[in-house]
Amino acid sequence: MPADHHAPHAALRLAQDLIRCPSVTPEDRGALDVVADALRQAGFTIERPVFAEPGFPDTPNLFARLGDRSPCLVFAGHTDVVPAGEGAWRHDPFEGAVVDGMLYGRGAADMKGGIACMLAATLAFLVDRGPDFPGSIAFLITGDEEGPAVNGTVKLLDWARARGERFDHCVLGEPTNPGRLGEMIKIGRRGSLTGKLTVLGRQGHVAYPYKAENPIPGLLRLASALVAEPLDGGTAHFDASNLEFTTIDVGNPATNVIPATARATFNVRFNDDWTAESLGAEIRRRLEQAAGNAVRFSLDLQPSNAPAFLTRPDGFVDLVSEAIRAETGLTPVLSTTGGTSDARFIKDFCPVIEFGLVGETMHQTDECVAVADLERLTAIYERVLKAYFPVS
Amino acid sequence: MPADHHAPHAALRLAQDLIRCPSVTPEDRGALDVVADALRQAGFTIERPVFAEPGFPDTPNLFARLGDRSPCLVFAGHTDVVPAGEGAWRHDPFEGAVVDGMLYGRGAADMKGGIACMLAATLAFLVDRGPDFPGSIAFLITGDEEGPAVNGTVKLLDWARARGERFDHCVLGEPTNPGRLGEMIKIGRRGSLTGKLTVLGRQGHVAYPYKAENPIPGLLRLASALVAEPLDGGTAHFDASNLEFTTIDVGNPATNVIPATARATFNVRFNDDWTAESLGAEIRRRLEQAAGNAVRFSLDLQPSNAPAFLTRPDGFVDLVSEAIRAETGLTPVLSTTGGTSDARFIKDFCPVIEFGLVGETMHQTDECVAVADLERLTAIYERVLKAYFPVS
Repeated sequence: MPADHHAPHAALRLAQDLIRCPSVTPEDRGALDVVADALRQAGFTIERPVFAEPGFPDTPNLFARLGDRSPCLVFAGHTDVVPAGEGAWRHDPFEGAVVDGMLYGRGAADMKGGIACMLAATLAFLVDRGPDFPGSIAFLITGDEEGPAVNGTVKLLDWARARGERFDHCVLGEPTNPGRLGEMIKIGRRGSLTGKLTVLGRQGHVAYPYKAENPIPGLLRLASALVAEPLDGGTAHFDASNLEFTTIDVGNPATNVIPATARATFNVRFNDDWTAESLGAEIRRRLEQAAGNAVRFSLDLQPSNAPAFLTRPDGFVDLVSEAIRAETGLTPVLSTTGGTSDARFIKDFCPVIEFGLVGETMHQTDECVAVADLERLTAIYERVLKAYFPVS
Repeated sequence: MPADHHAPHAALRLAQDLIRCPSVTPEDRGALDVVADALRQAGFTIERPVFAEPGFPDTPNLFARLGDRSPCLVFAGHTDVVPAGEGAWRHDPFEGAVVDGMLYGRGAADMKGGIACMLAATLAFLVDRGPDFPGSIAFLITGDEEGPAVNGTVKLLDWARARGERFDHCVLGEPTNPGRLGEMIKIGRRGSLTGKLTVLGRQGHVAYPYKAENPIPGLLRLASALVAEPLDGGTAHFDASNLEFTTIDVGNPATNVIPATARATFNVRFNDDWTAESLGAEIRRRLEQAAGNAVRFSLDLQPSNAPAFLTRPDGFVDLVSEAIRAETGLTPVLSTTGGTSDARFIKDFCPVIEFGLVGETMHQTDECVAVADLERLTAIYERVLKAYFPVS
């Protein structure tokens, strides 16, 4: 094993190597080679399945495993990044510049930095303990998380299951900390449900409203009814479910014409009080009650692939929390806030928690992380490995 | 004067001649020549001013006058028509076919048929009374009523005033009868005011609503407040004022993004309880009350060139009503319903009433009028002329 993987800057060098591959979804540009090279040197078996689906770009994935014993701890993540965007970066987004203790680059936080720390921690752990620890380590790394997420983790998990792989616990390296490393673990995610509401009317001239039927007052009534009352008051580990209208579109350019239809779209982030089915039924009930016989509408609930889920705060969560406390002095909040992530797929295979770098600049111009945080996250992951595989 | 203008079918022939000119705004295609030829033969002085304005097509107009004494009775109308539309016509829209007693064609009702009746009635009146009647007759005919109405009646009136023309009463030949000739005179029109409402928010991710500010709930609140209470209960000659939202547009395609702004447009048809100014102030008051400090909005009231107006039901209205009663047996309703018309410009020059054919099929596929109605409307207009210019 090369000496530089022992050095304190192993995570930084790996992060820079990854950032220098401009792997904007669905491009890879060598990013998975960086991961594969590091793991191969440490003795991992590497598989590189490419998944395809009509209408979506083929996407590369990586599965690596060391050991065949239980328990198997999985590190999961993605090497693809969102585009650099329109803003002017102070440092080239694909250069990996370090300035004043900060590493700049697209993916520094989300989540090439996190992957670099997983790799560096694993390599350090193996240098320390050798390959004969009581269990297995696996990596599930995809190049399709920021895009359609169709040819990524969801297929990689099925592929692994078909090969007989079994996982016991997973750490997903998304940047979970809002402002300071150690603040927050994600132990679940709210579900997401999108609905499209169409109110039907009858077109006509605005001067003859009795000959037409304006769908807009009906839409105002139905939409107001949906947001009038909270869906719930939150649960033990989740905030209250929340419904946001994201658009209303009638598209009628003529100010003297009453339109025929009015359309609105809403998205609900829902907690573990609901399934997509029970929530859809409640939304339909509210709409029907508000509509009565006065408003004709149709509701199209999009298939949801993001249910609410929770990883019970048991021994594994405690183990990760303790590793964080030991390195940072902070007791992480066990949160279920924010958007969805690939954890929604992993949770069907094993308990999964998410912990990574500070996400403050993710998806933004001048995305960056502190080099010191790379080192501390590496140390945290190494503590997790050591606690998960205790010396017998 | 050619014999055929005395014949009972003079109005039909003139209407067919006009329909055969496909004068879809701003095209003329010889339509005003038909009018000019008929009036020139009857001794009228003809002027054909073409008006221009940057950004709008030049449009032909016609002014004709016979006599220089007071009072001057004006016949007003337009020779332009709306397009034939997408529907399949049973009879070519520019052929003027007569089938089962109905004249088919674009403009048959709105309002080439009405112009043909005015011409035929005037010619018959002059044959009967000769040119030495105690007053004057004028025609104000434009080719820009169905389009932007910028280079039409509004400019023709100013042009005539600049020449020293003075008018005493006007009959505008719009198709005012909903289903049966003689049912309805328009003695005024509601005003029209259009407003654009913008609610301001702050864009963000739908999973972090507290970091964003969704403008849609604010728009729902403001729009609902505008339609919650009637603007008024109607007046002696007018229906209640009515506000219709014509569109709401956010234009946000991303179901995981809270948009930054939401826009809505409404149009008010208002009665003589209001001016555009007082109505605008009331709308602003309602919006400010509903918004409080919670909703940031802007209101853009479009300049209104359509105030509410009323021609007092006095002697002239009685004279026209009596002519209608004598020919049809019906007592016309004195109405102020429907959309705007060029009467909104004429009313600043002299009292104006509107009476024409049956408008049931106007702007539709297979627009048509009864040939018998052309003859009866001609007879009504001739009775108006005879009563307006009594034999001394």
